[in-house]
Amino acid sequence: MHPLDAFFNPAALALVGASSDPERIGGRPLRFLQEAGFGRPVYAVNKSGGEVQGLRAWTSVLDIPGPVDHAIVCVPVPGVRAAVEDCIRKGVRCIQVLTAGFAEAGPEGRALQDEIAERCRRAGVRLVGPNSLGLLNVHTGLHATFSTLLDGAKPRPGAIALATQSGAFGSCAYGMATLRGLGFSKIVATGNEADVDVAECIEYFAGDPATRVVLAALESCRDGNRLRRALVAAARVGKPVIVMKVGRTDLGASAASTHTGTLAGDDAVYDAVFAECGAWRAQSIEEMLDVAYLCVTARMLPRGDTLGVITGSGGIGVLVADHAGELGLAMPPLPPAAVAATQKLLPFAVAANPLDMTAQVTSVQDGIARSLEVMLREGGYDSVLAYLAHAGLSPRRFEAVLPALETLRRHHPERLLLLVMLSAPEVTTRLEAMGIPVFADPSRAAKALGAAAALRRRQANLVEPVRASAAWAPLPDVSTEHGAKRVLEAAGLPMLPETLCTSSDEAAAAAQAIGFPVVAKIVSPDIVHKTEVGGVVLDLRTAAAVRSAFDQLMTRASQAAPHARLHGVLVAPMVSGGVEVIAGIHRDPTFGLMAMVGIGGTAVELYRDVAFASAPLDRGRAQALVDRLRASARLRGWRGTPPCDEAALVDALCALSRFAAGHGDEIQSIDINPLLVREQGAACLDAVIVRQEARPVSVDAHGAVRATAEEAR
Amino acid sequence: MHPLDAFFNPAALALVGASSDPERIGGRPLRFLQEAGFGRPVYAVNKSGGEVQGLRAWTSVLDIPGPVDHAIVCVPVPGVRAAVEDCIRKGVRCIQVLTAGFAEAGPEGRALQDEIAERCRRAGVRLVGPNSLGLLNVHTGLHATFSTLLDGAKPRPGAIALATQSGAFGSCAYGMATLRGLGFSKIVATGNEADVDVAECIEYFAGDPATRVVLAALESCRDGNRLRRALVAAARVGKPVIVMKVGRTDLGASAASTHTGTLAGDDAVYDAVFAECGAWRAQSIEEMLDVAYLCVTARMLPRGDTLGVITGSGGIGVLVADHAGELGLAMPPLPPAAVAATQKLLPFAVAANPLDMTAQVTSVQDGIARSLEVMLREGGYDSVLAYLAHAGLSPRRFEAVLPALETLRRHHPERLLLLVMLSAPEVTTRLEAMGIPVFADPSRAAKALGAAAALRRRQANLVEPVRASAAWAPLPDVSTEHGAKRVLEAAGLPMLPETLCTSSDEAAAAAQAIGFPVVAKIVSPDIVHKTEVGGVVLDLRTAAAVRSAFDQLMTRASQAAPHARLHGVLVAPMVSGGVEVIAGIHRDPTFGLMAMVGIGGTAVELYRDVAFASAPLDRGRAQALVDRLRASARLRGWRGTPPCDEAALVDALCALSRFAAGHGDEIQSIDINPLLVREQGAACLDAVIVRQEARPVSVDAHGAVRATAEEAR
Repeated sequence: MHPLDAFFNPAALALVGASSDPERIGGRPLRFLQEAGFGRPVYAVNKSGGEVQGLRAWTSVLDIPGPVDHAIVCVPVPGVRAAVEDCIRKGVRCIQVLTAGFAEAGPEGRALQDEIAERCRRAGVRLVGPNSLGLLNVHTGLHATFSTLLDGAKPRPGAIALATQSGAFGSCAYGMATLRGLGFSKIVATGNEADVDVAECIEYFAGDPATRVVLAALESCRDGNRLRRALVAAARVGKPVIVMKVGRTDLGASAASTHTGTLAGDDAVYDAVFAECGAWRAQSIEEMLDVAYLCVTARMLPRGDTLGVITGSGGIGVLVADHAGELGLAMPPLPPAAVAATQKLLPFAVAANPLDMTAQVTSVQDGIARSLEVMLREGGYDSVLAYLAHAGLSPRRFEAVLPALETLRRHHPERLLLLVMLSAPEVTTRLEAMGIPVFADPSRAAKALGAAAALRRRQANLVEPVRASAAWAPLPDVSTEHGAKRVLEAAGLPMLPETLCTSSDEAAAAAQAIGFPVVAKIVSPDIVHKTEVGGVVLDLRTAAAVRSAFDQLMTRASQAAPHARLHGVLVAPMVSGGVEVIAGIHRDPTFGLMAMVGIGGTAVELYRDVAFASAPLDRGRAQALVDRLRASARLRGWRGTPPCDEAALVDALCALSRFAAGHGDEIQSIDINPLLVREQGAACLDAVIVRQEARPVSVDAHGAVRATAEEAR
Repeated sequence: MHPLDAFFNPAALALVGASSDPERIGGRPLRFLQEAGFGRPVYAVNKSGGEVQGLRAWTSVLDIPGPVDHAIVCVPVPGVRAAVEDCIRKGVRCIQVLTAGFAEAGPEGRALQDEIAERCRRAGVRLVGPNSLGLLNVHTGLHATFSTLLDGAKPRPGAIALATQSGAFGSCAYGMATLRGLGFSKIVATGNEADVDVAECIEYFAGDPATRVVLAALESCRDGNRLRRALVAAARVGKPVIVMKVGRTDLGASAASTHTGTLAGDDAVYDAVFAECGAWRAQSIEEMLDVAYLCVTARMLPRGDTLGVITGSGGIGVLVADHAGELGLAMPPLPPAAVAATQKLLPFAVAANPLDMTAQVTSVQDGIARSLEVMLREGGYDSVLAYLAHAGLSPRRFEAVLPALETLRRHHPERLLLLVMLSAPEVTTRLEAMGIPVFADPSRAAKALGAAAALRRRQANLVEPVRASAAWAPLPDVSTEHGAKRVLEAAGLPMLPETLCTSSDEAAAAAQAIGFPVVAKIVSPDIVHKTEVGGVVLDLRTAAAVRSAFDQLMTRASQAAPHARLHGVLVAPMVSGGVEVIAGIHRDPTFGLMAMVGIGGTAVELYRDVAFASAPLDRGRAQALVDRLRASARLRGWRGTPPCDEAALVDALCALSRFAAGHGDEIQSIDINPLLVREQGAACLDAVIVRQEARPVSVDAHGAVRATAEEAR
């Protein structure tokens, strides 16, 4: 039994703070429960006793004669502590606190919230809220919420579960979904998340037989790995999770002492984690609902990425094809067998993909069924989208098509069939019952299908959450470029031959040994941005030039940074050619170590053409990371230049991410900038490692920064 | 009287090919006209005579006793020519040919279509179609179409006009609009556009008092300047035009002998033209309808770009703010007066922008009205978007808010007010009647508002269509880099001192005069891609090196291209520093000369970070073009480099575009790549001018390429 099960399937429920006014916060849940016919005992608790909405009111939860496993607390703030205490003494297993005025209201509220959460934790009692809008098990009539929305939009039973941090956001999604006819299994608003969070709810829904699709709305995430595990658990059982992440924090910036950190931002990291864990991130509530509708109606995800389109309008066909291309769906041409079948069965049609049935799409007897059959049988497409104009608005005529569609669904159960048309509700309902989603807008249909295909791809390529370990020997001194490079070299990253020199003689000798031209760079733990203090001299071609550069660098550095400790000058080969890459590691406050890659300094900055992935990477994932860059074409023979050693880049990314992961909490961030990828091999031309000094921090639902006990050293 | 007026407001109508079967193409228009109660005479013409749907059927249009000004022809293809001939003899002013099987069916159909169009042209009779789905004047019941959609979705009268090339595409838009309650003034499907095209319909709607918003769907455009003029005409009278351009042609590629041409593509050019001419390009039918709904309901466009947001949910507030940022809307902070007013009137609210009313947004008496008043009066925002959760689902409670909203609209008639909430139809209708649009999805509301603000900006910054002229002296020889540069220099483009040398002595002397280092490049009208034949030598530092380079270049060129005419070697200063820009001119087959700018070769190619605008440019438009580039930051002191001379770039773009426009049809394309923008000034380092050799071509609705008589020399 999942620990959250008692919330959704209680044997008996107590409402502490029950009001006899059915419009008040304490009155509404009781009214909703009664209206929905919740079939288990519901006890009203009100310190005045008497009767509340037809129920006897117990003056204390302790007076209730029978057992109670789930208590809803909606007394005013000052009474919450005592109410929770009573519930614990009564032996409840779970408590929802709907009352607001806790962490979201200020430090006092936060302290009270922490106290209550700690009390529950010690008692082994689970807590939803405080400041929660409540939860619903729609199938059993457990309408344990005070949302007035339930009056305007009665919940419909269905297979979609919704976990939301913000009650308002969840209401908006719930209301829009319900008004368009979508049904829910379970809904929960986690509020301040003093205990139960959205991640745990996702995990619960992953194992809930009544749920086939999971919606989640997050404003923040307290435990990145719990979220990862929950998403992966849902993906493993094939349940699509569609997430909205709203609200941005500036936390990323506080840790941004390096390039990689600046580029990270919350959003890119969330995107990467959602993709790795098999979820789809929606950009709007409507998009979230479109994808959910498609998945829950089709009862499957597309088995692959190929799309066949049937249309009665060239223009709509092109519109769908344009969207499909943007969404990673492939529209391979109609195979010869399908062309032949089209010419035989539908001589008026343009035999291609899109299959253009012309204006006859709806007027020809059997045209719809025949074209769908051609696309499924001879076309072999994983999904088929048919644009049927307004065919569904004539229920009597469309009736004749339904048996053929039913047969097609039966013959091709593994293919996704999608109709785009204007349609009367009775037609739509019949189609949905067959597992055929119906959209009015071609663009929304194509986008939802693209998301469903991405969900399938991601579910098949899950990345298991890995915690950074401290398995490797502790880091030596990495406070200089030289120190960082030596450590990274030992970790398998490619370096040029370089020598740290402490005199001009040593520098000249090193240059002779390396071969001219060389570069010389100041080495100091106190100077991170060397070029800003004139700490780099390029293209030295003689021993004399190297000597003079040594003296110059030492002088400049001691002038520019009088207190800097100077370790000497690094002499290294001057190389050119190849493609400059930035590779990095960034410790995200929520998700831990993330690897990053970008190509070309300017493009990385201007176009944010960078990709993130959880560390460590294997070769496949490192290659996929590089492939995500729009600039990856530059590695493969760009405008006449020879192709670069992409394998060397992939190896370097793997080595870098393994190194970071192996050093547990020691690493805050690493910049290798540039990592020069050459025709043969690669070389780190500069490297900065920033140790993690402070304890890792986390952010809760209300933006308060606090140390996470679990992650603190 | 506009030439198209007789189509929409005929005094008497004849249906040639009228059928007594009300379900056939020839029968449906008659049925629809009768059902809609069209109040003018309608004559049925059927060669069998007798009676058709209760009307006497005339055997020929010539037999009709009274005058007829508008004829609808839907006889089969073989009879169309004779039917049109009869209509012309009868003295009609306009003809719709609904029959299909013309240009879209093949060369024979095209020939017949051309013949009929020419016959009409000579007779001064206007023609819609052939292959048109018909047209409607919804307000007069002129339902002259055979679309079966009219049975499923009866037209509602309203102020939106729709002109569409594709009947199917138009049906989809019409159907979706009608089912969501939008009303139309006039609708026309132009079909094969043998005469009347979408552009002319837009122009007509611009002057139509019944139309306030224009929708247009194009698959191609025959006359770019007519489209420009039509869009500008609508924009000048403040009517929003929302366009969808679907279907891509590969025509751009055929003319793409230069870089600029390759980058152009149809889409970037259409985007530029729509923006210049005050229109909004929608990416989906639903987006088109959202923008139309907003404009037609609010009866205005936002007067500016500032947005105030009221929300009951932090999450929704952030979601809207994110979209607003992407859409170019500004969300300035709440002014101090508004903060004070909020604290006084709404002490529970978070006084900021978004103004977060917390969960009390709907429960506090007057909360909605007070917050709106604060945002409008003290906030001063041009538009205010209020997210009111599901307040509209309780008509009885929302009723109380309506008078206050009415007062606010009256006090602030110039501000746009937008509500986002779940709402009962009776509430929505009341709000819409006050000029307040209501959306359910916050994202769609924000996007529609962004489009409306862009429409207002564009209407205020219209670019008048200019035709290229041949006012300048004819082009001399521009077949080499040297020739092109001299001509561009004379036109005011910045050049370095360069010398064309025909001997190694001349080259050495030129280098001495210019100063070392120099570059040397082969000059031949037959070698465009110099680097590919080793035709460029960089960084020559001595006279001897220049001599040797001269010989080397001449030898290499004659080996690589034995038949190339070699004019000599260009000696030019070797410069470095600055930012490399590509500036170009591209003759679009539809819209003529377009100016282009992009920064940095790689970024231009990989990220398509280029901007197009109609030539010629003035300084303001040239600056705006540069501002549109994401890479424009590189010109302004990027990562510690000094700022570049942006004014010199702007001047160069103006000079280049004036030069191209002044040379009428002589120019096919120009590439200046790179144009080096330096700390002081700029310099064209290479230039290619391609003359227009072939006649300009155009493409019609069915993809057939043909010479445009008007543009041919």
